[in-house]
Amino acid sequence: MENFDQNLVIGVDVGGQTSKCGIVDTRGTVIAQTVIRTDNHNTVEPYIAELADALKRLIAEVGAEGKIRGIGVGAPNANYYTGDIENAVNLSWGRSGSLHFAAMLKEAMGGIPVTLTNDANAAAMGEMTYGAARGMKNFIMITLGTGVGSGIVINGEMVYGHDGFAGELGHTTLVRHNGRLCNCGKNGCLEAYCSAIGIARTAREWLDMTDEPSLLRKLDKITAKDIYEAAKEGDALALRLFDYTGTLLGMAFADFIEFSAPEAIVLFGGMAKSKEFLTEPIERSMNANVLPLWRGKVKLVYSALKESDAAILGASALAW
Amino acid sequence: MENFDQNLVIGVDVGGQTSKCGIVDTRGTVIAQTVIRTDNHNTVEPYIAELADALKRLIAEVGAEGKIRGIGVGAPNANYYTGDIENAVNLSWGRSGSLHFAAMLKEAMGGIPVTLTNDANAAAMGEMTYGAARGMKNFIMITLGTGVGSGIVINGEMVYGHDGFAGELGHTTLVRHNGRLCNCGKNGCLEAYCSAIGIARTAREWLDMTDEPSLLRKLDKITAKDIYEAAKEGDALALRLFDYTGTLLGMAFADFIEFSAPEAIVLFGGMAKSKEFLTEPIERSMNANVLPLWRGKVKLVYSALKESDAAILGASALAW
Repeated sequence: MENFDQNLVIGVDVGGQTSKCGIVDTRGTVIAQTVIRTDNHNTVEPYIAELADALKRLIAEVGAEGKIRGIGVGAPNANYYTGDIENAVNLSWGRSGSLHFAAMLKEAMGGIPVTLTNDANAAAMGEMTYGAARGMKNFIMITLGTGVGSGIVINGEMVYGHDGFAGELGHTTLVRHNGRLCNCGKNGCLEAYCSAIGIARTAREWLDMTDEPSLLRKLDKITAKDIYEAAKEGDALALRLFDYTGTLLGMAFADFIEFSAPEAIVLFGGMAKSKEFLTEPIERSMNANVLPLWRGKVKLVYSALKESDAAILGASALAW
Repeated sequence: MENFDQNLVIGVDVGGQTSKCGIVDTRGTVIAQTVIRTDNHNTVEPYIAELADALKRLIAEVGAEGKIRGIGVGAPNANYYTGDIENAVNLSWGRSGSLHFAAMLKEAMGGIPVTLTNDANAAAMGEMTYGAARGMKNFIMITLGTGVGSGIVINGEMVYGHDGFAGELGHTTLVRHNGRLCNCGKNGCLEAYCSAIGIARTAREWLDMTDEPSLLRKLDKITAKDIYEAAKEGDALALRLFDYTGTLLGMAFADFIEFSAPEAIVLFGGMAKSKEFLTEPIERSMNANVLPLWRGKVKLVYSALKESDAAILGASALAW
């Protein structure tokens, strides 16, 4: 066994399908990692047992017994204050009620402290500790994936709010009249327009409304990735889809700036990979919609973490 | 001279017309107060000299020499970090550039520390220290006056943001299409609809669009106070104006809740006195527009400070 740091942490990113686990050192290197299925179980107990087994094997593999200072977990609907996962509709074992996830995992891991937060907050912690937001005390992390998540950092601290659920910017209302129905049951949410699913919905609407030729027209099911690839080919409709979506994001970001006056908005997630098409409309619209005092002053930056490590690093940052 | 606390602070509320000054003890009692004109000068130096004279007389009056721990100032466009007042269009001596207000007043007061913040933040500090938000660590103060201001408290601390100007919720965009022009130069801001001036603009629009009889119709210039008085008389149009304005406020508050998950929204200012007409529509709309997890959970409360003392208390709270 090599001679590792005496201080290590574990990061666990609990997604709907898989849970990514890694051991991380103080420099932010993922020194060992593994993946288990999240969706093999309908109750939480066997999932926790399987997760604890996987973590113990990982610890043994690198000879890190006794060196793990803590475990950080990023999971949907996770509450930092209580350590519970509440009504997580995207987790096969998490759908109803409150699960005392942190307490259960701590017990299964022989008492190693477990800290829990939602996935977007974990991503923000990761960027602040190891990534694009290093040195920043005030920024807003926006995750553009299947949904739109957010993690808000003010004065160097994550914002959890009164109840632990702060930072649901994907569900601020972007369109107040005849807005699209969102997964959350409300209408007009930012997420219904600017997530990967949102931009695909826009594509389908635009294709149905016109006869404009487009590479997207031949596809049965359109994804954000298809739109990105069509835009790369110069497809006019795909390019306009990014312009429209970026414009909407910029409008929303302007309102977020009025709230906490961040140094930067940090973008992360699958959709953020389309930055060559999103940056210009976002910046144009954000600066057009914000108070003059912030025009041209708030940076738009993209995650600096290697994608395969980002989720693990984000969760692990919680454990320090 | 009576035997006062050894620990006293001074609060100064700088408004466009007048500056209210008071000496405050640790229990939040205003033990002496005075008022000077703000708008007698076109440059800041003579105003500072007059203010310092007034404060010294007040200190002498109650024998508080040597007992003043600090001076807190609430002023428009004031920056907590720098102690400057920047481009304050509503102050006759503050219209252009940066004034090192805190440093100048400190010097004029023989070195007593001076802390500066904007008036809405001062109001939030006042409520947290002496008023309706005592014991709350997460709340959002909304001041409904000529404009709509805000002061955001997270984890027991005022949110100043990266540059000191956080908390401009009056300039988040409420109406995205054909929104009213706001004083700030943007369109559709919350302030353009829900301030005292905003509700009066709505009244004028509605009166012009219809022939509906209303007590407001005979007035040359309609104020928020006129609308309140008409509503008290049962005037149907005035009642609908409050319903509409409250509904808009509730929509905006729902978005603010998604941001910082506060325990309460605290309302202050002239318009907040119409609470008998505003509470129901605000609560209805806020709960209809917020994520299910917050429905019915975020309190709407009104300032608990005596109006004549509130501005002084708010500013003084900064100095502790």
